Amino acid sequence: MDTSAFGIAIMAAGKGTRLKSKRPKVLHEIGGRALLLHVIAAAKTIAPPERIYCIIGHEAKRVRAAVASTGVDFVLQPEQCGTGHALQQVKAHFAATGETPPAQLLVLSGDVPLIRPETLADLCKLHLRERAAMTILTAVPPNPTGYGRVLRVKADCPEVTAIVEQKSLTPSQLAAPEINSGIYCFNTSCLFAYLDSLSTDNAHGEYYLTDIAALLVADHKRVVAMKADSIEEVLGANTIAEMMQLDAAMRLATARKLMAQGVTIFRPETSVIDSGVQVGPDTIIEPFVQLLGNTRIGEDCCIRSYSVIQNSVIGDNVLVRNGCILDEAVVGSDALLGPYSHLRPGSEIGEAAHIGNFVETKKVRMGRGSKANHLSYLGDAVIGAGVNVGAGAITCNYDGVHKHTTTIGDGVFVGSDSTLVAPLTIGDRSYIAAGSCITEDVPPDSLALGRSRQTTKPGWVAARKSKAKPKE
Amino acid sequence: MDTSAFGIAIMAAGKGTRLKSKRPKVLHEIGGRALLLHVIAAAKTIAPPERIYCIIGHEAKRVRAAVASTGVDFVLQPEQCGTGHALQQVKAHFAATGETPPAQLLVLSGDVPLIRPETLADLCKLHLRERAAMTILTAVPPNPTGYGRVLRVKADCPEVTAIVEQKSLTPSQLAAPEINSGIYCFNTSCLFAYLDSLSTDNAHGEYYLTDIAALLVADHKRVVAMKADSIEEVLGANTIAEMMQLDAAMRLATARKLMAQGVTIFRPETSVIDSGVQVGPDTIIEPFVQLLGNTRIGEDCCIRSYSVIQNSVIGDNVLVRNGCILDEAVVGSDALLGPYSHLRPGSEIGEAAHIGNFVETKKVRMGRGSKANHLSYLGDAVIGAGVNVGAGAITCNYDGVHKHTTTIGDGVFVGSDSTLVAPLTIGDRSYIAAGSCITEDVPPDSLALGRSRQTTKPGWVAARKSKAKPKE
Amino acid sequence: MDTSAFGIAIMAAGKGTRLKSKRPKVLHEIGGRALLLHVIAAAKTIAPPERIYCIIGHEAKRVRAAVASTGVDFVLQPEQCGTGHALQQVKAHFAATGETPPAQLLVLSGDVPLIRPETLADLCKLHLRERAAMTILTAVPPNPTGYGRVLRVKADCPEVTAIVEQKSLTPSQLAAPEINSGIYCFNTSCLFAYLDSLSTDNAHGEYYLTDIAALLVADHKRVVAMKADSIEEVLGANTIAEMMQLDAAMRLATARKLMAQGVTIFRPETSVIDSGVQVGPDTIIEPFVQLLGNTRIGEDCCIRSYSVIQNSVIGDNVLVRNGCILDEAVVGSDALLGPYSHLRPGSEIGEAAHIGNFVETKKVRMGRGSKANHLSYLGDAVIGAGVNVGAGAITCNYDGVHKHTTTIGDGVFVGSDSTLVAPLTIGDRSYIAAGSCITEDVPPDSLALGRSRQTTKPGWVAARKSKAKPKE
Repeated sequence: MDTSAFGIAIMAAGKGTRLKSKRPKVLHEIGGRALLLHVIAAAKTIAPPERIYCIIGHEAKRVRAAVASTGVDFVLQPEQCGTGHALQQVKAHFAATGETPPAQLLVLSGDVPLIRPETLADLCKLHLRERAAMTILTAVPPNPTGYGRVLRVKADCPEVTAIVEQKSLTPSQLAAPEINSGIYCFNTSCLFAYLDSLSTDNAHGEYYLTDIAALLVADHKRVVAMKADSIEEVLGANTIAEMMQLDAAMRLATARKLMAQGVTIFRPETSVIDSGVQVGPDTIIEPFVQLLGNTRIGEDCCIRSYSVIQNSVIGDNVLVRNGCILDEAVVGSDALLGPYSHLRPGSEIGEAAHIGNFVETKKVRMGRGSKANHLSYLGDAVIGAGVNVGAGAITCNYDGVHKHTTTIGDGVFVGSDSTLVAPLTIGDRSYIAAGSCITEDVPPDSLALGRSRQTTKPGWVAARKSKAKPKE
Repeated sequence: MDTSAFGIAIMAAGKGTRLKSKRPKVLHEIGGRALLLHVIAAAKTIAPPERIYCIIGHEAKRVRAAVASTGVDFVLQPEQCGTGHALQQVKAHFAATGETPPAQLLVLSGDVPLIRPETLADLCKLHLRERAAMTILTAVPPNPTGYGRVLRVKADCPEVTAIVEQKSLTPSQLAAPEINSGIYCFNTSCLFAYLDSLSTDNAHGEYYLTDIAALLVADHKRVVAMKADSIEEVLGANTIAEMMQLDAAMRLATARKLMAQGVTIFRPETSVIDSGVQVGPDTIIEPFVQLLGNTRIGEDCCIRSYSVIQNSVIGDNVLVRNGCILDEAVVGSDALLGPYSHLRPGSEIGEAAHIGNFVETKKVRMGRGSKANHLSYLGDAVIGAGVNVGAGAITCNYDGVHKHTTTIGDGVFVGSDSTLVAPLTIGDRSYIAAGSCITEDVPPDSLALGRSRQTTKPGWVAARKSKAKPKE
Repeated sequence: MDTSAFGIAIMAAGKGTRLKSKRPKVLHEIGGRALLLHVIAAAKTIAPPERIYCIIGHEAKRVRAAVASTGVDFVLQPEQCGTGHALQQVKAHFAATGETPPAQLLVLSGDVPLIRPETLADLCKLHLRERAAMTILTAVPPNPTGYGRVLRVKADCPEVTAIVEQKSLTPSQLAAPEINSGIYCFNTSCLFAYLDSLSTDNAHGEYYLTDIAALLVADHKRVVAMKADSIEEVLGANTIAEMMQLDAAMRLATARKLMAQGVTIFRPETSVIDSGVQVGPDTIIEPFVQLLGNTRIGEDCCIRSYSVIQNSVIGDNVLVRNGCILDEAVVGSDALLGPYSHLRPGSEIGEAAHIGNFVETKKVRMGRGSKANHLSYLGDAVIGAGVNVGAGAITCNYDGVHKHTTTIGDGVFVGSDSTLVAPLTIGDRSYIAAGSCITEDVPPDSLALGRSRQTTKPGWVAARKSKAKPKE
């Protein structure tokens, strides 16, 4: 569809008093992202960011900072005097800047985050086809009581007579099933012409955009409506509990999408998967797993319970055991992680490599088939292929001031409980004795030791009992 | 309301045969606390503990021990012959002790733990206002079949004609929607007068308290009823599965209360939060988190998934990463924990301090901005500000007989894999070399080493291949 | 019941295209086991494995390999041309092998895994009692639309007139509530006689077994039907999402069974318990726990959240704290594990022993009351009673080529951060100094040290500041 005629205004100025939060409502997060960012993402499928106008007011600076990277424009609504008032600011913005307004204006709510691009496209299409002054997106909830109702000329006819608040409904209108979503298309010049006719003659003393529908109809302008496929995509959130329901709905939709692509997700309602995550078919996701950010996981993997994988890339046939935490890591195919491996940013684990329990890696490149299976800290290290890092081995990458690199060649055996003081290079195939503190470079094919000879004192235990206890 | 006329009897003598458990029913726990303790807590909002009478029988000693700290009284019902029999023991208790009975008696069930103080207060108020001999708490479940039904003189009239068991209902009574909760107020002297009129002429051969309603009505005494707001608060549990449903309902109510106060709780139905926990607004609780006991958490914190925080105090803006376990710990504002930190009792973590992965602390005071980020055990230690504890560093606090303290001054750098043998003091700004075993005090501004020089044997690997393998 | 007349054919040849998976449908797992293995387990309650015929086709080799250990027979259906075609292959199998077919044939679907043995027994019993040519298992779902319907001569009469697909239902048949489960009993000779009468004159060009019902009825053979108690046990899964629902249903049934036996399972819908797991009464299972394989847990235990116990045996009164991972481990009564203990295969933990946080064991026998509480790796070790293994102690069991054993006597004290280089024996009551590397056997009652004397350089920090920084 050609949506080049459209600009988009997003209502994002409200406080969200019922949230009892210092954070502005549109910056609360669901599905791992602020409400407003979800709405902007949907808006961008209709118009480029320079034609998207975020109307900000409460904590305007904070809201602007949070979404600035999207490239959208901002219109300030310093006081919040209703939805009509918000669009009056948009009109004033064009007057002040001299910018030509778009011919058509799509109006979105910054706190209705599940709206689908397909629905917006259909709405815009209908608006153009009907040559309407105003096109209203509606929905049919199980129980419409309490919502503003959109009244049609007659059922199944696109034309609307008015948007009526619950308390103003006549008895015969009480059963009207279609509610106003707060999402509209307007012919911009028509909208701007009528904005000044709005009054604050109502209980809250605000300018209501909904009043425009009746004004337009009274002047024989065309006002039509379109039903959304589901009520969910037009739901807003006024309380944190409602926000959490939107979050669960969004995440379940993501899990369902992946299952339809051949991913097995046990207890999908317990998974926490961001919408941008990609997972290959025949990968198994156990319960209570979190896949976040731009994570990509290959085929035939198994991600066990309690693991959290964020902004990471995982190959095929990788087993991630329970409780692994990955952040900005890259893991080769056939690798084996966990349980309780912690891969921090810059960890690049080679194919068929093993990272085991209670092992932390950071800025580490580990070669094919290498292993670090127990209780290790590997930071700022380049590790070759076929290396065995023993239990408890530690790279001492920090001297209190700077970080230094440890380089370990192919086929090296690092004995258990070794301390590798960086900067340090260990040559291919060398062997570090268990319990050693290694401070100097080790050439290839060498043995390095750095530990004391053992002393044994037979009978010491009996002797000790008759004396003051010596220091351990 | 003045409830000074009221005493409270709590039925807590039953076994709970259908639970298939050695533990007496009222000691099964939901929401982190025994059923009976929930009921006693509600009772205490109406009467002081010395006017609360727990009727105990099955495993009486165990039940008494479990709730003794609440200060309530106990009445023994050695054999369990029905609810009427239970109150006969209360009457006998007053006769035996000479204690004056309270003018009014509120009767509660020890296995109905969700009863709200507000409901009890309303019930007592109605009882006094109506000058009733008996006031019955009722509820309206979706399907009343199977329950004893409370029949009113007519709908919306407070007066009751009888409590009738399901099997004794006439066809026209089958649709009666109001069920008996087993919670009542009595005029005590009236109750005691009628208790002896109860008979065991029924299928189970027990004395039923419910029979008193009809006896009172027959004698033109006033019996009234009050509907509870919801069915949930009068639900008991006869099976473990039912008990688990009460637990989930109680915990969800706690999560909802916190969300209404501005706390974000993702997947609230997966959180496990005890009712006494306090959390500041704008704190985020991820899924699968447990907050237990008297835990208090400040504002703007984030508690990541799989963490369990018990009886701990956490400041503002603290990040608790995944899988942290805290018990009786105190954590300063801006601190950063985890993933997989284990803070045991007596851990006091300073402001902006960091405790990292696979680190255990116990009886440790750690100063502002200090860090122990990797694979450490810190026990019985006093650590200053700005200290860096390297990976794998361990305080050896136990010599096999006694525990000793390690004291570390401000700005100390503890190298990786150091072993600090307590009792030990390390002066301010000193520097412990990596891999050292430190057994003697270190003055301020010093370097301490306790490790061997490295020996390197080039060509050793080739030589080894032609020989018997030496010991690592 | 005597089911000796029965053989069983299991449909297991399909691909499951809608799963979008390389894995054949019947090998997808729910409840920890492939769909087909669940069906075979139910089938084995009716007939011995040599009279169970799995009809395989898609990825026949892989399916055969996955279930071969059950001892069932296989019939190849190289092309999949419908359910009737599948049974034609069974007929051909008997013709080709000369094996005598069983008198009665029970037909099961390899993707209907919740079918209960009791239901199959009832079906077979009815089939024999009614001397039926065909007996159809039916169920009554909340909404039958879309399913093939089983039409009875009249309600509550066992006799059936036909099985009719949704699209062929007459208006008066649309409300027929009973659906075909795809599970049948046949008189084998009667079935085989009619198989050749099936035609492919239908939309998919396949041979439909359901057509046989009408053919039999037309020839005045007896076709009867039996309703299953619940719809759940006849549900199949065509998508992964549906499969996940069957998994959840199966696991919840397991949790309910255990609760009915006196096990407390908080949030039972979050537990992941395989059907073969045994748990004693009064054991408490916290939320998010997994009990897998042949695990047996005693009485009065507490298994805390995020723990995964697989193929392990746990005594009475054991506390498993959060996040423990056990695989093929044996744990004595009164032991205490975790948090974050990792017991790998061959770990045998004695009575009242303690394994603490971030401790890994593998092929370790640990005696009564011994402790390893912090950050240890214990592999290939035999540890006596009353031993204290200090924080960070490590058994070096691998020299790069072979694994060796560490033997530790009763009452030994292993100091923190010790490195025990195997093969090694430490005698009873001996004492290993903290930070030691022990390479030689230690006799009983001895002290062994293997560490360097400490050197302290006062004033070093100030001196360092004016120079190039030395190596740590």
